[in-house]
Amino acid sequence: MRVGDRWYRTIWLDDDGWSVLIIDQTALPGELVVLRLTEVEQVAEAIRTMRVRGAPLIGVAAAYGVALALRSDPGDEALRGGVGMLAATRPTAVNLHWALERVDRELRRLEPEARGAAAYHLAGAMADEDVATCQRIGEHGERLIRACWEALGHGRPMEVLTHCNAGWLAAVDWGTALAPIYRAHDAGIPLHVWVDETRPRNQGLLTEWELARHGVPRTVVVDNAGGHLMRTGRVDLCLVGTDRTTRTGDVANKIGTYLKALAAHDNGVPFYVAAPSSSIDWQLTDGAAIPIEERGGGELGLGADVPVANPAFDVTPGRLITGLVTERGVAAATAAGLATLFPERYS
Amino acid sequence: MRVGDRWYRTIWLDDDGWSVLIIDQTALPGELVVLRLTEVEQVAEAIRTMRVRGAPLIGVAAAYGVALALRSDPGDEALRGGVGMLAATRPTAVNLHWALERVDRELRRLEPEARGAAAYHLAGAMADEDVATCQRIGEHGERLIRACWEALGHGRPMEVLTHCNAGWLAAVDWGTALAPIYRAHDAGIPLHVWVDETRPRNQGLLTEWELARHGVPRTVVVDNAGGHLMRTGRVDLCLVGTDRTTRTGDVANKIGTYLKALAAHDNGVPFYVAAPSSSIDWQLTDGAAIPIEERGGGELGLGADVPVANPAFDVTPGRLITGLVTERGVAAATAAGLATLFPERYS
Repeated sequence: MRVGDRWYRTIWLDDDGWSVLIIDQTALPGELVVLRLTEVEQVAEAIRTMRVRGAPLIGVAAAYGVALALRSDPGDEALRGGVGMLAATRPTAVNLHWALERVDRELRRLEPEARGAAAYHLAGAMADEDVATCQRIGEHGERLIRACWEALGHGRPMEVLTHCNAGWLAAVDWGTALAPIYRAHDAGIPLHVWVDETRPRNQGLLTEWELARHGVPRTVVVDNAGGHLMRTGRVDLCLVGTDRTTRTGDVANKIGTYLKALAAHDNGVPFYVAAPSSSIDWQLTDGAAIPIEERGGGELGLGADVPVANPAFDVTPGRLITGLVTERGVAAATAAGLATLFPERYS
Repeated sequence: MRVGDRWYRTIWLDDDGWSVLIIDQTALPGELVVLRLTEVEQVAEAIRTMRVRGAPLIGVAAAYGVALALRSDPGDEALRGGVGMLAATRPTAVNLHWALERVDRELRRLEPEARGAAAYHLAGAMADEDVATCQRIGEHGERLIRACWEALGHGRPMEVLTHCNAGWLAAVDWGTALAPIYRAHDAGIPLHVWVDETRPRNQGLLTEWELARHGVPRTVVVDNAGGHLMRTGRVDLCLVGTDRTTRTGDVANKIGTYLKALAAHDNGVPFYVAAPSSSIDWQLTDGAAIPIEERGGGELGLGADVPVANPAFDVTPGRLITGLVTERGVAAATAAGLATLFPERYS
């Protein structure tokens, strides 16, 4: 996406052809800082401390991390060590684990000397796949937004609420939940986005930054405000991302998502989740089984003597979700719904 | 309540018998600062900037403000001017308006020279009434907590979630939602309180400060976390305050309360509101008619170029409320429920 006069992805290879460049998201929205990563340990640190974040992006970053790990030693043990180190960084987003399994499986069957080049090739392919997936989610989601706007009679801008950041910063490009918003905006549909602040890390400010760069009208509100906005008729559609989706349509996403889904349900506001198939855990049938990351209490920024807890995700049951916007189209948030789009996973 | 080795109320008269002392809540939890107010304008400023806050407290503070206003001029115009200035400070909490109406009505029928002493007498009486009201809410609420704890089989501490601050800092003493918690704790019922941070002004830190002074186990969480805590069985009871309650049981309270009520309802967690009758607007039959204060966007603390909105309250419909804990007992959050306790208002 464009920032000033340049187009960026969130992760790319340096001109040397092997070191990995990322946008350091902990410096945003204040400053656009590009970091050069040359060791797998740096990639693991970047994922853990959320310099790179967002389910799709950390999957791709992990693939590049394995490529870096194999530069000094392409043997089985180094492969296992790199994969293990990266897998331990964050537990909830399934993309990370899915990406590492795929890399591990495809590289393990190669001779060690062939693994280095293959790892870079694979990571690059996964980055490109993510971009294509997000573009397709953008197309399907744009149709949803257009239909909702048509139903409003065009009398006023369409009002969309989003939580956390599921924009291009959370993916390689375009984003998941924000891709439809960018497309709709570019297609001339007037819309305004309510952006949840998203404590404790304020990823809403990343969303605000993205939307501002793209010229999309937006307003930041505290996480407490969404229910009031919906009860007073000021939200037409909710659209959020997901870190892990069960095969039955439950969604683990940033903590607080469930509260907004409840409010949407209580007020008849459609609640959609942009869910690339890479976020779907085809094994799980119950969101309660998704491991929820507990992050450090320091993220709240309170005094050291204040006891805190900091769960980073919550689970929204499929019954509260109007639909899942996948790269293959929109499905009901149920096993039957997903099976119509991904029959190969339900046979 | 006790702070260190001293007992405090949130507002009291100085030894000179006329100037008003308050705890400046904008300095908490960092520092306990007592301010001396000698002019009605200072009282209005203290209410507007939330040096004094909480529905019960701002009602009493306004009464003292009128007493100060009449010191220089006890005439009708000064009375009207003082009442008008104080009424304009904050729109949502009905206590403020109810207190000012009562003061205006009782003073207006007196000769000007009798008004000064009467105003102080009335403000003092209202402060004492508030303390007595909170004590009774504490007794009724303690019974609720005890019953819930008995039902748990005593196997573990009882888990209570609260939003914002409805403690002694929000009243003259004891508090509304926290009064039952203090009494239950003092009676030996083991309990732990989940304290919502309560953005944007972080009144949860006032609650944490209060509970810490009293030795009550507690954990602060971001406002996003409560739904997850309830879904994972870690909340036995929710207990919050109210800024305005309709005669039909709808409750306007700090923004975000509605989201917690939805989560409680979705998970079968009892959701109680500590509602002194001074918070009840006997005219209103629909929470949607309650004026919702929009406060300055600067409270979010974001950059000046970030567009923000900052509604300060939301409305929780009575259907989501298990019961209203009033000074006369616990009522269903309906007109019929309140009519059993306050028949004189429904005849």
